[in-house]
Amino acid sequence: MTPRDAQAPSTALLTDRYELTMIDAALRDGTASRRCVFELFGRRLPGARRFGVVAGTGRLLQQLRDFRFGDDELRYLSDHRVVSRETLDFLAGYRFSGTIRGYREGELYFPGSPILIVEGTFAEAVVLETIALSILNHDSAVANAAARMSIAAGDRPLAEMGSRRAAEQSAVAAARAAYIAGFDATSNLEAGRAWGIPTMGTAAHAWTLLHDTEEQAFRSQIDALGTETTLLIDTYDIREGVATAIRVAGTALGGVRIDSGDLPAVAAAVRAQLDDLGATATKITVTSDLDEFAIAALAASPVDSYGVGTSVVTGSGAPTAGMVYKLVARQDAGGGWVAVAKTSTDKGSKGGRKAAFRTLDEGTATSELIVVSDGFEELSPASRHPDARPLLVTLVEQGETDAGYEGAAGVAAARAHHARVREELPVRALALSRSDPALPTVYTDAG
Amino acid sequence: MTPRDAQAPSTALLTDRYELTMIDAALRDGTASRRCVFELFGRRLPGARRFGVVAGTGRLLQQLRDFRFGDDELRYLSDHRVVSRETLDFLAGYRFSGTIRGYREGELYFPGSPILIVEGTFAEAVVLETIALSILNHDSAVANAAARMSIAAGDRPLAEMGSRRAAEQSAVAAARAAYIAGFDATSNLEAGRAWGIPTMGTAAHAWTLLHDTEEQAFRSQIDALGTETTLLIDTYDIREGVATAIRVAGTALGGVRIDSGDLPAVAAAVRAQLDDLGATATKITVTSDLDEFAIAALAASPVDSYGVGTSVVTGSGAPTAGMVYKLVARQDAGGGWVAVAKTSTDKGSKGGRKAAFRTLDEGTATSELIVVSDGFEELSPASRHPDARPLLVTLVEQGETDAGYEGAAGVAAARAHHARVREELPVRALALSRSDPALPTVYTDAG
Repeated sequence: MTPRDAQAPSTALLTDRYELTMIDAALRDGTASRRCVFELFGRRLPGARRFGVVAGTGRLLQQLRDFRFGDDELRYLSDHRVVSRETLDFLAGYRFSGTIRGYREGELYFPGSPILIVEGTFAEAVVLETIALSILNHDSAVANAAARMSIAAGDRPLAEMGSRRAAEQSAVAAARAAYIAGFDATSNLEAGRAWGIPTMGTAAHAWTLLHDTEEQAFRSQIDALGTETTLLIDTYDIREGVATAIRVAGTALGGVRIDSGDLPAVAAAVRAQLDDLGATATKITVTSDLDEFAIAALAASPVDSYGVGTSVVTGSGAPTAGMVYKLVARQDAGGGWVAVAKTSTDKGSKGGRKAAFRTLDEGTATSELIVVSDGFEELSPASRHPDARPLLVTLVEQGETDAGYEGAAGVAAARAHHARVREELPVRALALSRSDPALPTVYTDAG
Repeated sequence: MTPRDAQAPSTALLTDRYELTMIDAALRDGTASRRCVFELFGRRLPGARRFGVVAGTGRLLQQLRDFRFGDDELRYLSDHRVVSRETLDFLAGYRFSGTIRGYREGELYFPGSPILIVEGTFAEAVVLETIALSILNHDSAVANAAARMSIAAGDRPLAEMGSRRAAEQSAVAAARAAYIAGFDATSNLEAGRAWGIPTMGTAAHAWTLLHDTEEQAFRSQIDALGTETTLLIDTYDIREGVATAIRVAGTALGGVRIDSGDLPAVAAAVRAQLDDLGATATKITVTSDLDEFAIAALAASPVDSYGVGTSVVTGSGAPTAGMVYKLVARQDAGGGWVAVAKTSTDKGSKGGRKAAFRTLDEGTATSELIVVSDGFEELSPASRHPDARPLLVTLVEQGETDAGYEGAAGVAAARAHHARVREELPVRALALSRSDPALPTVYTDAG
């Protein structure tokens, strides 16, 4: 693994305590070194949606670099007697040296899709459960919602501006996930810096309220930001706001923003007024409590772009993707390979190593094909499914991360990949109503 | 303000772009230095609940210390031409030098409660909008849900274990907020280290699946963690799991955990089986998709403690508290004091400086009393409401933070404060059903 940034804080305690107590017991009974396969997947799509969007992978890879138990972390674990002295020694030397394959960031997923497959010893793989799930569950929940909004918006630009409705670091991750799933920009400056996402925004109601008149506020904003700026015209009376905006800026005004009211009616009235005043090129942005349904309902309205806040950062009703991280195969005492799965209840999973393919018919996706193996053999059903697109790529090989999936370049690649694979979806997958998944998940045995 | 930790990364770009463009324009027209009062409040309680719980204040104070524009931040803003050269110079010297009063962390709130009141120049106060809202909206959403779960659980211990269903840093903040609102422990180790919260957890299903038999898994866990540990008994057959657990551990086994199935039925069966086996002191913990309603439904079941995941970290249906940050008063061009508010629509706010009190009748809260002032005068209605408890404390005075609200000590104080003020609530406030707020918000004029 590439050396971690010396500045970066450790991510190793972003972990549930039971992972370390299991390592403690496994080091004691010798099972810590058993080779294991853990799988990260969703049992269902959140919110009865038709497809999911994988997001967070690139963030996980970066945080994996910083997943080291340093002096501070070890001191806490020691002071609070979380684990034994032997386990502290093991953790002090911890670095993930296994292999992670997974879906590319931006890829679509369906129930049972093996989004991440982590292979390594029990001890090195079990400890990644929480951080992997935290990142993938949050980011994919946002991406799932964002993709639907992007479909609803069609060609109209879509900006994420929900930072204030998400915890401060989640806000940055949410901006990133929304961008991957089709948004065009964000209000969040850190998302711009860290991930290369275009940022936007001009003024809040506070700007108008700060000034003694709306006209003074508009005039100052034009002076500072130019005629191309967007003026927020709904602080007092919207009709007067539009009239003042054009009187101050002229008909070359870039745009007006509406942040309240019954948007279809208000947008139509504002458009008519702008056109009457000769400001036919002045654009209208709307930003009031939009979600995918509200965006769809505005499709016929004279709106030029959308800003979405709360609903995208909170997953539009499904704030977590609900993915789980399960042991699906391991070595037994004799070194043999065993597929394993919880069997007691409804929360079962499918044991065995997996490979995954999207079958296509003339370019349109027809199924999520998951090939299950009980053993170590190579999983290469592509030969039997020549039209199937392989979904798994190697993200980490023997501890070495593929840097191509990280950073701003990784985000740009994920966004492009998402746009490409979304084109494969059948038309029915694009509807917003609640439904079964758009593709069936089909399991087949290897060999 | 106390010097920031040299290690801590800057929080200054956790900010919406429009805050900086407003500063840019305000520096140009001279309004940047107008004295302003911004107020952070909720227009309603999320999820039609009966009260809200303030959380995040201590985190905000710590992040405010790191809210500085350093070389990296300024370079990004310069490279992307977010603001002018003059504004970069202003930001380079930025440090909040104003005053923040607010509700204590752990305090209850109602619609319109002035949870934070930020006074300073326009430029120094407007730029805190996003970070203040991000932290308070997230943490209070979790605390709102957690308080209801804590009420439903009564005297039974309650652990937060939802890290996997929240973004990795939000998970730490969520554990903290849940603890303040009445939870007793968390699975999240970083929450333990950073905020002094007790941590818990023993083993996952992967532990049982790792071993060739359930018995071997239980035996190893007992060997490593002692008989006092909690065994997870639902990987295969629950009845066999319980029998195996007691056979291996003896009747002194600390506890068993059930993570699936129809909990009231399963808990009753497990309790009866444990008692039959003589393990009458072995405790039962349940952890499967609980929320406040499921906890309440288990009140008559033989359950000893609860672990709550998804629902608490996602606010149990209300993942953001929906608070806003609004300019409510400012100086005009002549230096006079003006109460301001958006007036166009349903999203209006109440202008003017505020003070806040909880009126009490024989120790039971009767109203949220908000005293509104149009001017600079002292707001001291306590003399007229001798039974009213003042709700605002000074968090930051001329840039100096009151350190008593920060760190693990701040968390402990907030948790104690919450427990105390929750005792003031009328009984009707403790019901879980959707309702109007339990207390009316009453506005009165100062003077």
